[in-house]
Amino acid sequence: MIVLGVDPGIERIGWAVIEKVGSKLTPIRFGLIKTPRIPTPARLLLIRQEFTAVLHEFKPDEFATEQQVFAANKTTALDVAKALGVMLAVSAELDLPWAEYSPPEVKKAVTGVGQAEKHQVQFMVQKILGLTEPVKPDDVADALAIAVCHALKTRG
Amino acid sequence: MIVLGVDPGIERIGWAVIEKVGSKLTPIRFGLIKTPRIPTPARLLLIRQEFTAVLHEFKPDEFATEQQVFAANKTTALDVAKALGVMLAVSAELDLPWAEYSPPEVKKAVTGVGQAEKHQVQFMVQKILGLTEPVKPDDVADALAIAVCHALKTRG
Repeated sequence: MIVLGVDPGIERIGWAVIEKVGSKLTPIRFGLIKTPRIPTPARLLLIRQEFTAVLHEFKPDEFATEQQVFAANKTTALDVAKALGVMLAVSAELDLPWAEYSPPEVKKAVTGVGQAEKHQVQFMVQKILGLTEPVKPDDVADALAIAVCHALKTRG
Repeated sequence: MIVLGVDPGIERIGWAVIEKVGSKLTPIRFGLIKTPRIPTPARLLLIRQEFTAVLHEFKPDEFATEQQVFAANKTTALDVAKALGVMLAVSAELDLPWAEYSPPEVKKAVTGVGQAEKHQVQFMVQKILGLTEPVKPDDVADALAIAVCHALKTRG
């Protein structure tokens, strides 16, 4: 089973593809979709194109994202939702099952503790995937944690 | 100039197409995109398909939407933003210029008063477009007001 994890955003979208065989998880590829400061519609179209390219290249079986937490900046929250909407429509087009996890759910699945610190989550993700160094930047590390969370919670 | 006005939503999206020739505004067609209570990704894909069909049928030159006001229900606000994101990506694909107006801006453009009552707005929209009866439902009436607002504020 191939899982795509995504940390949604409008300016930066972290993504990570991992494979699950039995109980073994292996990283396949991870990266960042970055968009320039252009008008929102053009930005969303770019996100649609780059996200579609990731789906076509890695053909995931499952898609997981982190649930939006309401930040102080409402405009940013709405823009992130716009970008997520674009990605969800593409995922539906490819009949890709989608799951959403809150930040504490991700932490609990990966470390066993819902209130774990960020570095504990990253440490466990690194261990589980057999990575030799910490993943940077944060958006990509988060996407990897989401993919691991989904893989651990899903049979297949 | 053909203007498409949209009142964004996830369950109900009002849309209205009007034509501007000189200072005269004429209604072309208006309607409602309704989505069933299916999972969000499938719902967004449906919105993308129906919105694309409206664009292909009426080939607007300009696209205007009402700015989201933050309601009590944050989940609904995020879902509406997701749907708007999907529509904006489609509009960018067709190089359609987009403008967004706050509710007071729409009221002021249509009635001259930013705090006008809903029925005053509807009365003026009806007059301006030469419609013989009030437009129903509210989502469609709002979309028409947004289209009129944009047409009145734009040269062309």
